[in-house]
Amino acid sequence: MTQDLAKQSIGELAPLLQNKDISPVELTAAVLKNVDKYDSQVNSYIEIQAEGARQAAKAAELEIASGNYRGALHGIPMALKDIMYFKGETATMGSGIHRDFVPDYDAAVVSKLKNAGVVFTGKLNMHEYAWGATTTNPHFGACRNPWDLNKIPGGSSGGSGAAVAADMAIASLGTDTGGSIRIPAASCGIIGLKPTHGRISKYGCFPLAWSLDHIGPLTKTVHDAALLLETLSGYDPRDPTSIDKPAQYYSGGLSEDLKGKVIGIDEDYFFRNVDKRVDEAVRQAISELEKLGARIEPIKIPSLAQAEFAELVTITSEASTVHHQNLIKHPEMFGEDTRFLLEFGELVTAVDYLQAQQIRRKLSNEFAQTFEHVDVIISPTLPFLPPLIGDNTVDINGQTLSFLDEVIRFTGPGNLTGLPALSIPCGVRDGLPIGLQIMGPAFEEEKVLNVAYALEKLQLMKGQKPDLLSVL
Amino acid sequence: MTQDLAKQSIGELAPLLQNKDISPVELTAAVLKNVDKYDSQVNSYIEIQAEGARQAAKAAELEIASGNYRGALHGIPMALKDIMYFKGETATMGSGIHRDFVPDYDAAVVSKLKNAGVVFTGKLNMHEYAWGATTTNPHFGACRNPWDLNKIPGGSSGGSGAAVAADMAIASLGTDTGGSIRIPAASCGIIGLKPTHGRISKYGCFPLAWSLDHIGPLTKTVHDAALLLETLSGYDPRDPTSIDKPAQYYSGGLSEDLKGKVIGIDEDYFFRNVDKRVDEAVRQAISELEKLGARIEPIKIPSLAQAEFAELVTITSEASTVHHQNLIKHPEMFGEDTRFLLEFGELVTAVDYLQAQQIRRKLSNEFAQTFEHVDVIISPTLPFLPPLIGDNTVDINGQTLSFLDEVIRFTGPGNLTGLPALSIPCGVRDGLPIGLQIMGPAFEEEKVLNVAYALEKLQLMKGQKPDLLSVL
Repeated sequence: MTQDLAKQSIGELAPLLQNKDISPVELTAAVLKNVDKYDSQVNSYIEIQAEGARQAAKAAELEIASGNYRGALHGIPMALKDIMYFKGETATMGSGIHRDFVPDYDAAVVSKLKNAGVVFTGKLNMHEYAWGATTTNPHFGACRNPWDLNKIPGGSSGGSGAAVAADMAIASLGTDTGGSIRIPAASCGIIGLKPTHGRISKYGCFPLAWSLDHIGPLTKTVHDAALLLETLSGYDPRDPTSIDKPAQYYSGGLSEDLKGKVIGIDEDYFFRNVDKRVDEAVRQAISELEKLGARIEPIKIPSLAQAEFAELVTITSEASTVHHQNLIKHPEMFGEDTRFLLEFGELVTAVDYLQAQQIRRKLSNEFAQTFEHVDVIISPTLPFLPPLIGDNTVDINGQTLSFLDEVIRFTGPGNLTGLPALSIPCGVRDGLPIGLQIMGPAFEEEKVLNVAYALEKLQLMKGQKPDLLSVL
Repeated sequence: MTQDLAKQSIGELAPLLQNKDISPVELTAAVLKNVDKYDSQVNSYIEIQAEGARQAAKAAELEIASGNYRGALHGIPMALKDIMYFKGETATMGSGIHRDFVPDYDAAVVSKLKNAGVVFTGKLNMHEYAWGATTTNPHFGACRNPWDLNKIPGGSSGGSGAAVAADMAIASLGTDTGGSIRIPAASCGIIGLKPTHGRISKYGCFPLAWSLDHIGPLTKTVHDAALLLETLSGYDPRDPTSIDKPAQYYSGGLSEDLKGKVIGIDEDYFFRNVDKRVDEAVRQAISELEKLGARIEPIKIPSLAQAEFAELVTITSEASTVHHQNLIKHPEMFGEDTRFLLEFGELVTAVDYLQAQQIRRKLSNEFAQTFEHVDVIISPTLPFLPPLIGDNTVDINGQTLSFLDEVIRFTGPGNLTGLPALSIPCGVRDGLPIGLQIMGPAFEEEKVLNVAYALEKLQLMKGQKPDLLSVL
């Protein structure tokens, strides 16, 4: 029974908790049991807080028993990427330099989850400062993909993707600067939602590149992503990039009705040079959506040709600004590939950076024009299947290509424009899950969620589960 | 009579025009007569449009005669800095590259002035692309200061300052990226107003550095500046930096009442290393304001120590982005010092630029906090008196200092923060006018205008006029 509990979604668990059919204590025990069982293999946790979680679960149990049920997240075990501050607890950012850093305040998202009654089971593994390591972490070791322990779980929120996929957390939060929520979601076969830039406050979350950074949920279901989005949304003057736009009751408004919906497809950019298995799975899912009443419209967004330049220039420049002093003072404390990327960022010129920002504005305008006649844009999340840990290249249909270039090719435009984008699994090929990306207009997350909801109902992943869960 | 007309302000002329006591035709003739008389010496015009002006004046005369008086600017001769587009007319930007450039649309400010019935007498001299030349223009020659023809009129809107000071235009518009409205206003003994960033649309105005650029009026009186401000203000979606904040009826609300007003003085930054003559004139004016009921409050804005770094990094980076392609393709077509500055801008790193933007945010916050307890901040506009044309250094109390560093020391913070700032003459020393700068809170130009209005009433410039007007 306990193991089954940890497999379930927030949406399934919440009524059981509310009705006292189950207790947060047994649910938390089920999750911690999986952590015990799997995480020595997966390494998704930087810090396991078993005792704290048990106490919090007990407190939630008492509170619910006394009639003070707070809502759908009350008593739900979650673990967050170790880049969001908990007052008085270590926040490592996956780094050596901040290994013992203890912030004295809660991140905005942490406050909100605490208020919602979430039970925290620990801090999750990630790339160093959400940057650097493409496949491992030099300070806390590589996190592994529960579908195949030799493969990467995707980064930088790899711990979040792996923990949720292996039922070691009911849900998680990650950060996404070039795709770091959507990439692990795709690689681990779960849902990852990057909301519109400015929608969720980043106060108390260590920056990678502030104009591209987003916080968002990694979950088992679309409903859970919607639930976390509505919980975490809201203007926050403490975050200079926060935007004052009212959020919606996303989880209550989900609709799988696709009639009259228009799906934009940019063949030139989003379907060029894609692993055949990925291409096939995504196209098959799109044709299923068509059968449900959606109309496909070919689109063309010309500035996407310059998106990768803009993304790499912006991310390296801003990251190197954040770490400038530490890079001068103790370069040896960074992992080798983080240091390489930071040193590269120091060489980017202001003219490059400003040209990149001009491209971003143009790209945003082109997307906005496109969204005047399509509801969402669908693409693969990644052009490849998760490669082996340690590989700096990927194979796409026999071509050997740079991992770093390829990994953010389809997700980066969502960061450059700040548009909402979600990755949802749409099938399994050769034992590995395939992610499909749905992008939508600014501050219209509901459009993205609804198409994802329709896709989820098709149960393209039915019966498929990570190797880890089958084998161990 | 005609010469007297050209000496007058818009505020004085408007009722005469409205009542048909004078005609736009004779007013325009008076202005053109001065252009004839003085501009071979001053060189404030790049293009004199005498015939066009006469025709426009005739049309305005007929329109007013037929009872269709448009308002205070109807029939007023103005000339603008040659960086604002007139549909179908050459806009040189003071450059060789754009010498024959003919835009096919009107700048937002040009449309507004055309609608208001302004008579345009020509295009005014300026630094090459509002950048480069500290003292001359390599393509159109140096503009000269009407108070002393050997001295600079201040840049980059030098033509605007000189033309208004020598009664060769009733009023003008300039652009201000580091001080280019306020510096010529101070140097030529007139009023120059840089409004809040985003207040006046820059659509159809060639950029120098878009995050610092402003358009604003150069006028003979505070009332005229207020009048032009209210005419030109307003949100414009065609300018990405435009901000949607309602403007006021500034010219109708002017008040010289200083009782209870608080003037902030930052001795450390704004009164350090100032020419004794400037220092004395500005302090004397401040003590007059005190006598009228204002209270002086010492203030301290710590990040001003980093303002010059932030200003130079931002202006050079953005300017070099604007001119990047031309600098690669035909560097020889730029003036030598413009090219030097553009080449310098190519070397600035993205990290420098982003650090500068971080300083700007900090600086803006400190100014905002200061404006919670003071109404305006007063300083000298320039730390020196206008130097000789051709000098790259200035003398400040016996020290020889870099002209470029010193010239924007007090005006640059207004560009970095976007706060409204006005320069008003407060006296004459050794035959040269002294400018006093009044800065105010964002989008509260009325606070700046009111203190300037009180200062103007003191008639500190009474009887003082440019040498040119006395001698020739």
